[in-house]
Amino acid sequence: SETKKIAVIAGDGIGPEVVAEAEKIIKVTEEVFGYSFSTEHALFGGIAIDEKGTPLPAETLEVCKNADAVLLGAVGGPKWDNNSKELRPETGLLGIRKELGLFSNLRPAVIFDCLKDASTLKPEVLEGTDLMVVRELTGGIYFGEKFRREGAGGEEAVDTCVYNTAEVERIVRQAFEIAGKRRKKLASVDKANVLETSRLWRETVNRIAPEYPEIELEHVLVDNCAMQLLRRPASFDVIVTENMFGDILSDEAAMLTGSIGMLASASMGEGSYGLYEPVHGSAPDIAGQGLANPIATILSVALMYRLTFGYSDAADAIERAVAEVLDAGHRTADIAVDKSQALSTTEMGDLIAKAI
Amino acid sequence: SETKKIAVIAGDGIGPEVVAEAEKIIKVTEEVFGYSFSTEHALFGGIAIDEKGTPLPAETLEVCKNADAVLLGAVGGPKWDNNSKELRPETGLLGIRKELGLFSNLRPAVIFDCLKDASTLKPEVLEGTDLMVVRELTGGIYFGEKFRREGAGGEEAVDTCVYNTAEVERIVRQAFEIAGKRRKKLASVDKANVLETSRLWRETVNRIAPEYPEIELEHVLVDNCAMQLLRRPASFDVIVTENMFGDILSDEAAMLTGSIGMLASASMGEGSYGLYEPVHGSAPDIAGQGLANPIATILSVALMYRLTFGYSDAADAIERAVAEVLDAGHRTADIAVDKSQALSTTEMGDLIAKAI
Ligand SMILES: CC(C)[C@H](C(=O)O)[C@@H](O)C(=O)O
Ligand SMILES: CC(C)[C@H](C(=O)O)[C@@H](O)C(=O)O
Repeated sequence: SETKKIAVIAGDGIGPEVVAEAEKIIKVTEEVFGYSFSTEHALFGGIAIDEKGTPLPAETLEVCKNADAVLLGAVGGPKWDNNSKELRPETGLLGIRKELGLFSNLRPAVIFDCLKDASTLKPEVLEGTDLMVVRELTGGIYFGEKFRREGAGGEEAVDTCVYNTAEVERIVRQAFEIAGKRRKKLASVDKANVLETSRLWRETVNRIAPEYPEIELEHVLVDNCAMQLLRRPASFDVIVTENMFGDILSDEAAMLTGSIGMLASASMGEGSYGLYEPVHGSAPDIAGQGLANPIATILSVALMYRLTFGYSDAADAIERAVAEVLDAGHRTADIAVDKSQALSTTEMGDLIAKAI
Repeated sequence: SETKKIAVIAGDGIGPEVVAEAEKIIKVTEEVFGYSFSTEHALFGGIAIDEKGTPLPAETLEVCKNADAVLLGAVGGPKWDNNSKELRPETGLLGIRKELGLFSNLRPAVIFDCLKDASTLKPEVLEGTDLMVVRELTGGIYFGEKFRREGAGGEEAVDTCVYNTAEVERIVRQAFEIAGKRRKKLASVDKANVLETSRLWRETVNRIAPEYPEIELEHVLVDNCAMQLLRRPASFDVIVTENMFGDILSDEAAMLTGSIGMLASASMGEGSYGLYEPVHGSAPDIAGQGLANPIATILSVALMYRLTFGYSDAADAIERAVAEVLDAGHRTADIAVDKSQALSTTEMGDLIAKAI
């Protein structure tokens, strides 16, 4: 089959370590399934600030735009935390989302059977939890005008939250489509009792809903959703929401699974273009020590195969291999009960590769 | 002692039932402790829409302004959910907060020993959880300019989030003061890596912090806070944050205690003026059936005694009486294991009154 291009951004902290294992997996799937990939590495985040003076160098953007998909490790760390806005890794993240048009962030939150005790929730509450947060990623208060001004109460800061109908429509439609391929339930989360953008959001959802009569739709206020995620996580299927609410709720949902070291995510643009990354951060405290868990990044490759390339055989194989290795009791330090028995990052990667 | 004025707003749904029990408790504390209160009832929320054509009638505002404190049951219900903005109970809530200058919402989240199994979190994780969310209540995206306009992508909705230094200072100072009377830990929650208002927030917190050297301060990003509340709830003491984040996080914190039917809240203005209400809503589905749990409203009276009147003997007595009645195994339906043994709203109120 035709060679697919993957832009690989290792990033900061444990990023390079976990991405190296994911690349191992990519190679194995080439051999086993006959797919062909070419990977091109690019600098991004803290390391790009250090080496190029900007978190998102123009070359990196070029590499990403020329690729069919992007694999990202993690960015950020204390080293850059006190930098001015232009020289912060997060600014690079927001920039790459906007420049690549990645308007939809898919954050599956699933329970790994062998890890359900790692959650702070009771196992009987978690039972059957398998949800997906669909977060709008290039609009809202993240990207609206921001400024300072002098006011009566001294200095004043302003953020603007803006959504237009087209932006809401495309993310909501995508969420309906995804729900249709899952358990056919969609929770649209907003704060329509207070915010004008939420009222536009809800009107738009209600206008689109009749096109998807098979999907059971509920509107949930964001504060209530933060509660219901705790009370009845298993009852959610797909949750669609705007950028800021999605940031908060997707992290809450990820944490309640107890499997945050294992969760993959996708940020999709128009068509099948996507950026894939683990949900966990750059974990600078354990970087370079071979302690990081590569599974979330490896599962991000599976997500990439499924969503960008349609290689579901290889995606299935990766997911099955991960489950097999975990079922056999293999653990990295973050998920090991007995830390002295923990595998290193590369050992875990090797085992999964072998299982494929 | 001098007669104190309490404005009583029963509101909608179960509001009138739970407020009636709270008034019973107020009477008992007059007899037992020799305090003197005069109560004046006022219409607010859905019932005010029905009877006066507005959720916040001018007379109600007058009654509140003439009082030393306000006791509120609950407002809202499906009957008014599809009304236009001006005719919705929530609009009354936002209005009363603004008009009475209630800039600070205090939301204690504590575990009731006898209810710790009601939480979806594991008891060992909850152990020792006793936190207070201090939410800014009259600023931010709730009160900034909101409008629609035509844009390139069709209709566009805009919300504006504004904070000035003075607004941030007063709430942050209050949070530091509260932390000083508790375990001396303050977590300031923002999204300073994205929002300009959060950057102003964080700068202001850092400028004030040196005045409170005994308080241990941490800055937590809102998405991370949503996770840490789940992972280590007991490690938080006081959490201070802006209006929208506080709405979400205080509900998350309330739910994780498993005791949402039992939690009181205070909305404070300048000085000791305050509005007190249960955290739970108007529960229209069980209204008028004597099923509601009056404890959160009764504990709101205790909070009022403590924060507005400085009557800590009576506040202690109420809290002790509630604990005693619960320890003796008495339960309303919402918290009963055996529903057939559940007490009615008035039975629960009577028992607590007797225990005082
Ligand atoms: C780092 C930050 C800007 C980013 C966000 O808020 O979107 C992160 O929290 C995320 O969820 O990817
Ligand atoms: C009803 C709504 C406007 C209100 C808010 O968002 O402030 C409620 O959720 C609360 O927390 O008191």
